[in-house]
Amino acid sequence: MSGIFYGIGVGPGDPELMTLKAHRLISAARIVAYPAPDSGESFARSIAAEAMRADAIEIPMIVPMRVERFPAQDVYAKAAQTIAQHLEAGEDVVVLCEGDPFFYGSFMYLFARLSERFRCEVVPGVSSLAACSAALARPLTARNDVLTVLPGPLEDDAMRARIDTAQAIAIMKVGRHLPRLRALLEEMELTACAGYVERASLAAQKVMPLADAPAMAPYFSMILIYKGNDPWLNP
Amino acid sequence: MSGIFYGIGVGPGDPELMTLKAHRLISAARIVAYPAPDSGESFARSIAAEAMRADAIEIPMIVPMRVERFPAQDVYAKAAQTIAQHLEAGEDVVVLCEGDPFFYGSFMYLFARLSERFRCEVVPGVSSLAACSAALARPLTARNDVLTVLPGPLEDDAMRARIDTAQAIAIMKVGRHLPRLRALLEEMELTACAGYVERASLAAQKVMPLADAPAMAPYFSMILIYKGNDPWLNP
Repeated sequence: MSGIFYGIGVGPGDPELMTLKAHRLISAARIVAYPAPDSGESFARSIAAEAMRADAIEIPMIVPMRVERFPAQDVYAKAAQTIAQHLEAGEDVVVLCEGDPFFYGSFMYLFARLSERFRCEVVPGVSSLAACSAALARPLTARNDVLTVLPGPLEDDAMRARIDTAQAIAIMKVGRHLPRLRALLEEMELTACAGYVERASLAAQKVMPLADAPAMAPYFSMILIYKGNDPWLNP
Repeated sequence: MSGIFYGIGVGPGDPELMTLKAHRLISAARIVAYPAPDSGESFARSIAAEAMRADAIEIPMIVPMRVERFPAQDVYAKAAQTIAQHLEAGEDVVVLCEGDPFFYGSFMYLFARLSERFRCEVVPGVSSLAACSAALARPLTARNDVLTVLPGPLEDDAMRARIDTAQAIAIMKVGRHLPRLRALLEEMELTACAGYVERASLAAQKVMPLADAPAMAPYFSMILIYKGNDPWLNP
């Protein structure tokens, strides 16, 4: 009998924001795969490190961390092959995923290659979106709001149109797009209701109004905008 | 010194989808508040029940569970008063929140009344959105997709416009709007890429293509649509 293929969300960064289920499965796992940059440590692994067995077999998937370049599929093809061998041998395999596996996650590239051949279970995790609104100490969405999540690289006109028709907006993957996004939101007169968060839930977390944001933003940064009439402030 | 006011996301339903932090704080809490319907048990409390101390002082906030009627603010005003008394006496107070506290949560009504006077900490949780995409075994969003989250009660024209400009769409609070939403999505030729989930992550969970959805949907039900070109299926 083949093993089970687990995609496990390890949450936004603080290891205590892993779920009980993630912690249980990672603690028991003999084979653990995770994405890793070509230099430096894996973020997903660093979140789960304390829970991992000392004798776990590790399968790092080395993907160059370049903004806006989607990773070469050969990395995932090769990792899927290795994982498939373990699954065929009857071993369960855990894949560590930053945040939630199905929320802009690279996990899908493995999932696409393995989920039809093997039993697969996805364990949802706390997303960076939830961590950023908690960090800002401000509700993300209220009542019957429309929420739109936009990737930072989206061009100005497309972004403007989508911001116009939502009450709550999250712009992900801000990174090097910060100067352009600031100018756009200033032009739309939304700076006053925009917050900026980087590295939510980590010790290095930074939270501030967008107007005070630094000139340079890391890849893991987000802008949250609330245009509604703040029903929680005027209940 | 005043106590700390905690808003804690307990996740979508499966108690194992609570975070380690939620579990730690709830296990230690002497005073626990939660929303509850006027008949039947509190969903948030049922998720956290096993973690709660037997001697915890409980503050149920009884809110009539009627779709589309936002709860009478006097319930929250009264609860805020009770909670404030405990905080002033130096006791921490934990509020249990279904899913994530700031994602369409009624927690904001307490937060609005207490966060300026007391130290407040929000613990993010796994949202129903993440639980539903895990249940459907399908990525919610990929690469540079735009995701739009829509409340079921939104009228057809507004909904159509927002669906048109997103790749990934989640319709929350489906409930009694299901027949209307099905007709709308059929007209937009999106039925084939729409999934239906109710009570995600609970034993009573139901998952199916929208085309097979039952005639009646409970309040805790969701439709997920993916219009993109399925990059995870054609990597």
